[in-house]
Amino acid sequence: MRSAEATLSEIIGAAGAHVPRLLALVEERLVLLAAGHGPVLAEHAGETIAAGGKRMRPLLVVLAAGPHAGRERELVAAAAAVELIHSATLVHDDVLDGARLRRGAPTVWARAGRDVAVATGDLLFSRAFSELTAVGSLAAVRSLSRATSALAEGELLQRQDAWNGSVAIERYLLRCELKTARLFQAACEMGAQVARLSTSQIAELGGFGRGIGLAFQLLDDVLDVAGPASLTGKHRGTDLLDGTVTLPLILARERDARLAAVDLRTITTPAAAEQLCESIEQTGALRESQARALQIVAEAKLALDGLPLENGQRRALNLVADSVAERTA
Amino acid sequence: MRSAEATLSEIIGAAGAHVPRLLALVEERLVLLAAGHGPVLAEHAGETIAAGGKRMRPLLVVLAAGPHAGRERELVAAAAAVELIHSATLVHDDVLDGARLRRGAPTVWARAGRDVAVATGDLLFSRAFSELTAVGSLAAVRSLSRATSALAEGELLQRQDAWNGSVAIERYLLRCELKTARLFQAACEMGAQVARLSTSQIAELGGFGRGIGLAFQLLDDVLDVAGPASLTGKHRGTDLLDGTVTLPLILARERDARLAAVDLRTITTPAAAEQLCESIEQTGALRESQARALQIVAEAKLALDGLPLENGQRRALNLVADSVAERTA
Repeated sequence: MRSAEATLSEIIGAAGAHVPRLLALVEERLVLLAAGHGPVLAEHAGETIAAGGKRMRPLLVVLAAGPHAGRERELVAAAAAVELIHSATLVHDDVLDGARLRRGAPTVWARAGRDVAVATGDLLFSRAFSELTAVGSLAAVRSLSRATSALAEGELLQRQDAWNGSVAIERYLLRCELKTARLFQAACEMGAQVARLSTSQIAELGGFGRGIGLAFQLLDDVLDVAGPASLTGKHRGTDLLDGTVTLPLILARERDARLAAVDLRTITTPAAAEQLCESIEQTGALRESQARALQIVAEAKLALDGLPLENGQRRALNLVADSVAERTA
Repeated sequence: MRSAEATLSEIIGAAGAHVPRLLALVEERLVLLAAGHGPVLAEHAGETIAAGGKRMRPLLVVLAAGPHAGRERELVAAAAAVELIHSATLVHDDVLDGARLRRGAPTVWARAGRDVAVATGDLLFSRAFSELTAVGSLAAVRSLSRATSALAEGELLQRQDAWNGSVAIERYLLRCELKTARLFQAACEMGAQVARLSTSQIAELGGFGRGIGLAFQLLDDVLDVAGPASLTGKHRGTDLLDGTVTLPLILARERDARLAAVDLRTITTPAAAEQLCESIEQTGALRESQARALQIVAEAKLALDGLPLENGQRRALNLVADSVAERTA
């Protein structure tokens, strides 16, 4: 299994030199946006943005556009906007979850409290739409605002379904689509929009993004149950302790009556969560969840075949899909 | 002094029949937007939106545009979008303030908890930008996203300045501008944009909006100290109990050394807040705060003189300014 860094360098190698250049410009732009709005935003939003992460969404914007020089300003703005939305949701999610750490660093909520964290998230949201106007495309505003609405709807669904062990698979998948897949979709759509692709091509690239976003979330949920902690950086079953019912548990409940009888509210310690994860794994539910995710990735890759992409671009998008399928943290 | 309803009907009478028709369409649109996004949003956002308020911002959109039939869809979208942003900030403000009631009804925070309230606010924000794409103008997206960034920056400033009795007047005014005036400005700008006014006219109408928004906030802060509770629906000095230092206290501290020595953290009961309000009033600080607000309104009205407005439109905008100057609740 390749490391995330190795995969990223393969992707960049396949796509061409414009990709690292654009991604560097996106980083510069994000730093500038964080610094340009007073000391409080500079501190809190800056650290959130700097804490970074994989920049999957900006990468998708750039790759979906293909090697179209001359529209760099628009691409960088679209990529920065989608990353700002992602950062905003992380800040608000940490408020909702009461999470003290993210990627090993204290969250805004932990550092500065609920009030500052809510306002910082709001500011990042707003800045995303300001930045988006530099793309010069109402279609881009439409794509991103739809995705942002979906994110919030997904968050509401998740709260509504909390502790409900008997939630249906379809409902779980809808939640994953809203919470994760739609923003991946918007990233691909915006890249395709900047590249002036046709409406149907924009929709197909959006579908690719939605698919790998969905798989990304499914595999994230598998990792939460599978661990090990040494790899994921958190103990197994944090979702279960939060009352978040994910695919492994849903499938495991169908296979094991004892698991179906477990009331999640009685699982209150990391040790109990670990034991439940073990029981889920023994049903084979993790393997089935993973297989479903890989099937979704395979379908997303197939959808690329019908698109008139440049060779390096096609290879790079396929590698992104592979990197999602192979994700281990 | 005229009642708010009487003033509104005067404004509508002056501006012409298109205004009530458009405002009714805005209401319909808001109901539709609240209903169209699943039961959770329908419930929480719906009640927030329905709880209504004065619809000052949609009114400004419509009045700034003037009687331009044929662009109703754009105007309604811009007016609905600005009201959605306003609703979103109310939902988040109630989370930050831990406010159980707004206009006599339980807040989303009180009904459904912090998590649902944060997500509901996020959803209203997102829906505002989706709705805005129907205006078909990137300038409108720019206006509203700038105002929304300002709102969040203002909220951050207010948290930063909490309990700081020695905050400077300029800093207080900046906070009012960010928290309130900029959204009024955006409302006027968007109306003027839909009406295809010139860049300088858009800016001047925006300046009018900013001025009356600033006065609106100053007078809001005066009312919090002045009361009486029977008129405002809340006890005197709620801002002081929250640690929010406003103009009356800033001015009173300059005039009365005993007030300058008060540590706001020691004011913890409604009775103590009431007594502090009484002391502030005795310094004449309320009258001076009010005089400053009225001066700002007068300047905003003067700015209208240079604009080529239709007669009814001019009269109506002047009446809106008067209604702000005369506000009593």
